Amino acid sequence: MSDAGFDAPSVIRTKRDGGVLSDAAIDWVIAAYTDGRVADEQMSALLMAIFLRGMTGAEITRWTTAMIASGERFDFGDLGRPLVDKHSTGGVGDKITIPLVPVVLACGAAVPQAAGRGLGHTGGTLDKLEAIPGFTAELSKNRIRQQLSEVGAAIFAAGDLAPADRKIYALRDVTATTESLPLIASSVMSKKLAEGAQSLVLDVKVGKGAFLKTEAESRELAATMVALGNDSGVPTSALLTDMNRPLGRAVGNAVEVAESLEVLAGGGPDDVVELTLALATAMLDAAGLDGVDPAQTLRDGSAMDRFRALVAAQGGDLSAPLPIGAHTETVVATAGGVMGDIDAMAVAMAAWRLGAGRAAPGHPVQFGAGVQIHRRPGEPVAAGDTLFTLHTDSPQRLAPALAELDGGWEVGAQAPVIGPLIIDRIG
Amino acid sequence: MSDAGFDAPSVIRTKRDGGVLSDAAIDWVIAAYTDGRVADEQMSALLMAIFLRGMTGAEITRWTTAMIASGERFDFGDLGRPLVDKHSTGGVGDKITIPLVPVVLACGAAVPQAAGRGLGHTGGTLDKLEAIPGFTAELSKNRIRQQLSEVGAAIFAAGDLAPADRKIYALRDVTATTESLPLIASSVMSKKLAEGAQSLVLDVKVGKGAFLKTEAESRELAATMVALGNDSGVPTSALLTDMNRPLGRAVGNAVEVAESLEVLAGGGPDDVVELTLALATAMLDAAGLDGVDPAQTLRDGSAMDRFRALVAAQGGDLSAPLPIGAHTETVVATAGGVMGDIDAMAVAMAAWRLGAGRAAPGHPVQFGAGVQIHRRPGEPVAAGDTLFTLHTDSPQRLAPALAELDGGWEVGAQAPVIGPLIIDRIG
Repeated sequence: MSDAGFDAPSVIRTKRDGGVLSDAAIDWVIAAYTDGRVADEQMSALLMAIFLRGMTGAEITRWTTAMIASGERFDFGDLGRPLVDKHSTGGVGDKITIPLVPVVLACGAAVPQAAGRGLGHTGGTLDKLEAIPGFTAELSKNRIRQQLSEVGAAIFAAGDLAPADRKIYALRDVTATTESLPLIASSVMSKKLAEGAQSLVLDVKVGKGAFLKTEAESRELAATMVALGNDSGVPTSALLTDMNRPLGRAVGNAVEVAESLEVLAGGGPDDVVELTLALATAMLDAAGLDGVDPAQTLRDGSAMDRFRALVAAQGGDLSAPLPIGAHTETVVATAGGVMGDIDAMAVAMAAWRLGAGRAAPGHPVQFGAGVQIHRRPGEPVAAGDTLFTLHTDSPQRLAPALAELDGGWEVGAQAPVIGPLIIDRIG
Repeated sequence: MSDAGFDAPSVIRTKRDGGVLSDAAIDWVIAAYTDGRVADEQMSALLMAIFLRGMTGAEITRWTTAMIASGERFDFGDLGRPLVDKHSTGGVGDKITIPLVPVVLACGAAVPQAAGRGLGHTGGTLDKLEAIPGFTAELSKNRIRQQLSEVGAAIFAAGDLAPADRKIYALRDVTATTESLPLIASSVMSKKLAEGAQSLVLDVKVGKGAFLKTEAESRELAATMVALGNDSGVPTSALLTDMNRPLGRAVGNAVEVAESLEVLAGGGPDDVVELTLALATAMLDAAGLDGVDPAQTLRDGSAMDRFRALVAAQGGDLSAPLPIGAHTETVVATAGGVMGDIDAMAVAMAAWRLGAGRAAPGHPVQFGAGVQIHRRPGEPVAAGDTLFTLHTDSPQRLAPALAELDGGWEVGAQAPVIGPLIIDRIG
């Protein structure tokens, strides 16, 4: 376990004692872990030391670069289109990628998106898109290239990108080293920098339903990832956005695709539209297409056309019915008033109990599981109104899901005070 | 990986965040790691969290108890003799067990000693004793019992005692989690409390050649282990002793056995004799035999008789020549004066280069490797005097060993100021 002058215990010891890892040490330990010369137990000890001791910006950048170098880095620059992508740190009801990619496409940019499956309380874009019958995200590099050329976008499983990150991510999950800013930032950015985008826009969530709980932490994560992208030659900016309550009226898999289709048809919830257009504007700005009006593509149907072409290219059939869960339960208002704020985490946990998320990596999700929100915060409520509908394929999941929702909302006399959806822009 | 209400990530998270592990959590994680339900990578992350967050005294006691419970705890109380043992935290030239056990035996106590093999710069008692042709430390429980009954002592490889500790010790070695006070204390004491001694005396080293570098750390380790022993029902005390320079004139394996025989014959270096008698006095005190004079057993040959009987019982042949390495190199004084202080670590590293220690667990050691010190600190030196002799079975090891010795000693005009060997007694 020693070569190039390095050995795993020395590298671990340096970080354990609060030191800074040299570029060469980082390159060595990532390469050696990828090919098995550094053992899982050694990487685990190093990850815990990083968790507790932190990393400098330079260390995070090098760690990310080394993880990218453990696999292939895509380059589609020869296609002659501006390639831009977006990443969200994960929210509740966050289906934004689904309307956003076609909007950006319709405005003239191309989008190569390595997307993930969900783990924990937030859903994954792939879990949602795979609710469309026939849709596949397992695309070869050649197919991604062909799709970027013909359709302008590809949304694919990260697969062989940054294999070191895949190994480390699995380890973090079982060793309680997930919620570490340097490890989150490097994990996200290793895949985003390897996927072939020439610029990036990040949607960093703040609030009850976000992965990091405080605004300060979310700001630091955003600043770290923005610096990391820029340092790696990929211009990157971030929006800091509110994730205290769910986005839109649907949380789950198929139900979120249905809501995305409403948005692409020119309707849909205000907040989903607002965030889609804000992110589109930032992406088009990054791609040098800032004279274009993304809202127009929702009005004129061009974004919907792009979405249909993208789904068809990836085998999906939008003419087939979406598999929304047939077993349902509703929550009905016992008195009138105004809907108060809705706790994103309560709704996320309800959707998770219904089967929308997974308990462990590799487990299946239920495409039909999800929660519909009939009264959003601030909307009037009459006694007897249906407030929520829960969907699942497994009726025994309804009772525990209802229990999660309890206490996560209330009907009151006054509309809640809700801050702006877009909190700040960084970079 | 979840039962009894526990799962590894939750236990790791508690310690990661600076919390205190419950008794039940400690019992679960040690038992689950021993039988493989908790994986190596999870225990590694927990060990690093313990390294950086520490443990309370109550956590250390419970962790130790759980490690003992992972295997058998010996009980020889029915033999009707006071059973007392000593443990050293590891020193350079620390052959004290070899004269000490027979002295204590000759005074009427019995000694069940689970001993270790060396790792790193300090030698292990078993590596030294195994330099005696035929000597074996692989004793069954029945043979240990028989030897305690017939000879009064057994010095044996820890083997099946505290198997959880054996697994954890191997992991600490490759994950840079060795130098942790709670982990050192629990590792040592799990074997010492399982071996069947009814009272314990600890020799905790302080100084350049000690495992922990500062007196404060050594004092804390001593206090922790003394409390741990007493809390576990085994009366324990500790001597804090100086390990800035090697003990005696011999550092290695066979050369240390030879020096031990000198001490048992009534001679030998003053410091080895002093420490042997101080530890013997503490052990006899603990065993309730405080009316006996241990020094008498060195003068009258009774300790030597006990040593011969012990070695013979374990298959050793003291009539065969000790295998002292035939390839030698000497360091000769270029000018006269007085020998200054000698750095224990420089001599330890020289002996290690000569082959006396091992680079990794399970590697063999050279019984013949070692350093003889012809002029101790404060002794007069004439130009041309031989100061050190290096022994090895591998001539190519002589040059690197000589290089380690460089700068570790000097001949000056005045005798160095040397503090007391026995610094303090704790407990």
